[in-house]
Amino acid sequence: MNYVDILGLFAGACVTISVIPQIVKVYKTKKVRAISLKMFGTLTFGLAVWIVYGILKSDLPIIITNSVSFCFNLTMVYFIIYYEKE
Amino acid sequence: MNYVDILGLFAGACVTISVIPQIVKVYKTKKVRAISLKMFGTLTFGLAVWIVYGILKSDLPIIITNSVSFCFNLTMVYFIIYYEKE
Repeated sequence: MNYVDILGLFAGACVTISVIPQIVKVYKTKKVRAISLKMFGTLTFGLAVWIVYGILKSDLPIIITNSVSFCFNLTMVYFIIYYEKE
Repeated sequence: MNYVDILGLFAGACVTISVIPQIVKVYKTKKVRAISLKMFGTLTFGLAVWIVYGILKSDLPIIITNSVSFCFNLTMVYFIIYYEKE
């Protein structure tokens, strides 16, 4: 792994962890009305396609970071649907 | 440009356009309290690093899609700061 790969992992780490404060905020406040389900739905789908792209290009930073991002954003999709019902 | 590049552009397009419904929602409702500034701040920074990674790898789909994403998410950062004040 060279320094470019490490930069890719760092970039992916920033994008990936960025969703955590949003997950925590929604979990604490239970408020999701201002948040767009369309955004997190499309984002989660796009991340799944990024994972396929990473596999086809054998690009490890893309595969790893987008897989974790995918899980986090899927959690957001679940939270939005769950708390919107309440 | 081969089919893998096209897949990458498609993945990036999904992730990129995903923010549009959120921008529209905030613009219409002016409500940002449920939205995390930390999320969009960290995301925007991470996208900037992805652009650098794409340049170093000469990976066109990464450069193009993350540049557009960067602009959209910077708009969200501006909206959150602007409407939180009001």
